[in-house]
Amino acid sequence: MQFINAIDFMFPLLANTTEAADSSLVLAAVLLSLVVVYFASKLGGELSNRVGLPPVLGELVGGVVVGVSVLHLLVFPEGGADASSSLIMTFLQLTAGLTPEATPAVFTAQSEVISVLAELGVIILLFEIGLESNLKDLMAVGIQATVVAVVGVTVPFAAGTIGLMTLFGIDAVPAIFAGAALTATSIGITSKVLSELGRLNSKEGQIILGAAVIDDVLGIIVLAVVASLAKDGVVDVSKVIYLIISASGFLLGAILLGNVFNKTFVAIADMLKTRGELVIPAFIFAFLMAYLAAIIQLEAILGAFAAGLVLEETDKRKELQRQVCPIADMLVPIFFVTVGAKTDLGVLNPAIPTNREGLIMATFLIIVAIFGKVITGFSVFGQPQINRLAIGVGMIPRGEVGLVFAGVGAASGALSKPLGAAIIMMVILTTFLAPPLLRFVFPDSDDGTNNSEQLILDASTDKPLALETQSSVVSTSGDSGNVS
Amino acid sequence: MQFINAIDFMFPLLANTTEAADSSLVLAAVLLSLVVVYFASKLGGELSNRVGLPPVLGELVGGVVVGVSVLHLLVFPEGGADASSSLIMTFLQLTAGLTPEATPAVFTAQSEVISVLAELGVIILLFEIGLESNLKDLMAVGIQATVVAVVGVTVPFAAGTIGLMTLFGIDAVPAIFAGAALTATSIGITSKVLSELGRLNSKEGQIILGAAVIDDVLGIIVLAVVASLAKDGVVDVSKVIYLIISASGFLLGAILLGNVFNKTFVAIADMLKTRGELVIPAFIFAFLMAYLAAIIQLEAILGAFAAGLVLEETDKRKELQRQVCPIADMLVPIFFVTVGAKTDLGVLNPAIPTNREGLIMATFLIIVAIFGKVITGFSVFGQPQINRLAIGVGMIPRGEVGLVFAGVGAASGALSKPLGAAIIMMVILTTFLAPPLLRFVFPDSDDGTNNSEQLILDASTDKPLALETQSSVVSTSGDSGNVS
Repeated sequence: MQFINAIDFMFPLLANTTEAADSSLVLAAVLLSLVVVYFASKLGGELSNRVGLPPVLGELVGGVVVGVSVLHLLVFPEGGADASSSLIMTFLQLTAGLTPEATPAVFTAQSEVISVLAELGVIILLFEIGLESNLKDLMAVGIQATVVAVVGVTVPFAAGTIGLMTLFGIDAVPAIFAGAALTATSIGITSKVLSELGRLNSKEGQIILGAAVIDDVLGIIVLAVVASLAKDGVVDVSKVIYLIISASGFLLGAILLGNVFNKTFVAIADMLKTRGELVIPAFIFAFLMAYLAAIIQLEAILGAFAAGLVLEETDKRKELQRQVCPIADMLVPIFFVTVGAKTDLGVLNPAIPTNREGLIMATFLIIVAIFGKVITGFSVFGQPQINRLAIGVGMIPRGEVGLVFAGVGAASGALSKPLGAAIIMMVILTTFLAPPLLRFVFPDSDDGTNNSEQLILDASTDKPLALETQSSVVSTSGDSGNVS
Repeated sequence: MQFINAIDFMFPLLANTTEAADSSLVLAAVLLSLVVVYFASKLGGELSNRVGLPPVLGELVGGVVVGVSVLHLLVFPEGGADASSSLIMTFLQLTAGLTPEATPAVFTAQSEVISVLAELGVIILLFEIGLESNLKDLMAVGIQATVVAVVGVTVPFAAGTIGLMTLFGIDAVPAIFAGAALTATSIGITSKVLSELGRLNSKEGQIILGAAVIDDVLGIIVLAVVASLAKDGVVDVSKVIYLIISASGFLLGAILLGNVFNKTFVAIADMLKTRGELVIPAFIFAFLMAYLAAIIQLEAILGAFAAGLVLEETDKRKELQRQVCPIADMLVPIFFVTVGAKTDLGVLNPAIPTNREGLIMATFLIIVAIFGKVITGFSVFGQPQINRLAIGVGMIPRGEVGLVFAGVGAASGALSKPLGAAIIMMVILTTFLAPPLLRFVFPDSDDGTNNSEQLILDASTDKPLALETQSSVVSTSGDSGNVS
């Protein structure tokens, strides 16, 4: 009987031992899953970094290796996997006395916990990105970002929908779904890569970030339209109006609130004398904003990003960045490895007939997906010196957002199996291609310097490395010219 | 449709929308629960600190206030609560469109996630305590700690069991169970209070910590004996031998491994170039050790503590402490608030007949619980200058460990309702009394200085506060004379 069972043996005295056994096994399963996640993320991230690619790509690939596609260590029930296909469950049966009867419950609980940890990871990531961004800088490129977002939504949508209908003879509703899936931009992957390249606060980075946020909001509206179309053939106008109003209200409210809440937050943090005096109030704020964003049908991560932006304007910013950094180091990899682990590369297997049919459509979708976003860079006006290709490439990854469209489409029954597989292939390829492409369109300066710095520091002690991590945060903030 | 549903819309295309809705609501419920946890912990911790008591007491009380005893914001199914009694679920129904049908599933998932986060919190806490402790210092007081632990197990056990049998006419098996519950010491609460008082690395602190670890191991063995006694009246000798061998093997193995793994860990961390280069390898090690400890029937937290001790001997110690600090700030409060939230003060209500009967036994148990541990301080030999009272008081809190005994006893059917309630009253009172008592038996020096320092810094900016947190960690490590 273990200490970790304590939680289940609480009052009243009715607790029973089988429940307790489960709880300790769930913890064991979560611990083992985290060990697998961290191994995959570090191995993948480091190897990716060695060959000059963004670490996050390695984390995604590491996730694929431990996930449903290869090793089956980390599988999830939503992927259609059951407990018996999870190697971690098998391992627990061998080592921890997990019985076959108790396995499904432990498997479900473990998947639930890891999924929520992954969600918390991406929430912390966007909070951190918000902390490293500057609202005024973002507003300064607001019009360009809006243009990029709108072009990046309309061009792939129109080209994808019309192309599928004319070239492949697909019906209007499924074609519109596929077109909608092409509009997404994964703010998580894009912002992480930009941060890794030290380009988050470059003008290009700010435009990409701003456009990705707007794209996210547009995507939510497009999805609502498409989903109601698929459901009963008509658009639910009231829902669309509600979404537009709530999204604008939330973003405007966050900005206005920011000016007031800044001082309150600093005052509260200064009053507190016990440990966590900065991180806990910050997380209360970030999690509340994430919750608010989630319940008004926006995304939780947008709330966390807004909270980060608000706190960026306080003079606690640097200390908060310093403290959030290790928390992000702990939680963010869970998100990327989980995304990789849930990616079933089986859809790329040409031996399966529906895949073969899907592959041709996928080729078309991928071309539209890449060129439809790359073109957005050339819609930026009034910035002659800007790296237009980088902006376009930054908008390419569909990531989790693209999968939402595929999932809703599949659930609504509107998508045929080949078209569904084609959309998923498009999402996988754009997601995995974007980090190396971004690396190559941002070839010089910051990043190059970082690399050579690392090589020089290679032989020395650990201190400079630790400092370097910090100084890169400071220097990227410095880029935006607002070190307070 | 929200981004946070993405995780559920993964491959294959069979995902259905109801599952997805749940997942986004589970995240919303977890975010809201965390906001409640953080509010309760900060409000309680700060108020407790203001009146000169350890913050952790305030976190426990804050948990009681938001938990099953008062506000019903944070309730858990193990406490016999169902989803309808959770105010967070009611709130989600009002704000987030949670349907009554979906509520039980969301409630279960939310409770599971928060419970695991709490477990991760106490694992990180013990890892951090290990990082702040020193193996050689602990070994130097090893014999005293063993004596304290053995006295602290045998005296309360004998006095409690014999007292219940002779004074209250209780049967042998339930009396032995109650006696066993008296042997526990909550390493989590004790170590946290010591750390807050800046006394973790005092000689008294080291003896308490060492004794609490040994007490934990002894407690596991006692519980195995008692549980098999309750089950079929005979002691399962093979299980006891297995536990003794595996516990000794694990602790010895950890110490030996420490000397080898030190260098490997530093070499690995030096090789890594991407973010999390220190925290991720450290957590891989800590979680593996926690997993190993858990599956050999020890406690996960003992594994994490051993991992912390091993890494304390590397020259990465300070940087690791600095990075683990905010992670602990984020996760540890979840543990203490959860313990408080699960504590049902209803057992103290004398209006309920079984409680009245229990209250008399509880009074006896509490006296034995306090004096049986306070006496341990006087068993320390060869340390004339030592604060014997402080050592004894440090062993008082039963915390979660005491509840394990109560839970196993209740589940086995051996305990009558009044005796069960009496044990729980004893656990509650020793847990909540120990932090203020410890504060008063450690009256002077370090802690006093800290307090006055804080008062001086009160009016200034936040920087000194942040620095103070760090410097207090450094200074406590410095006490043990091994700053490398």
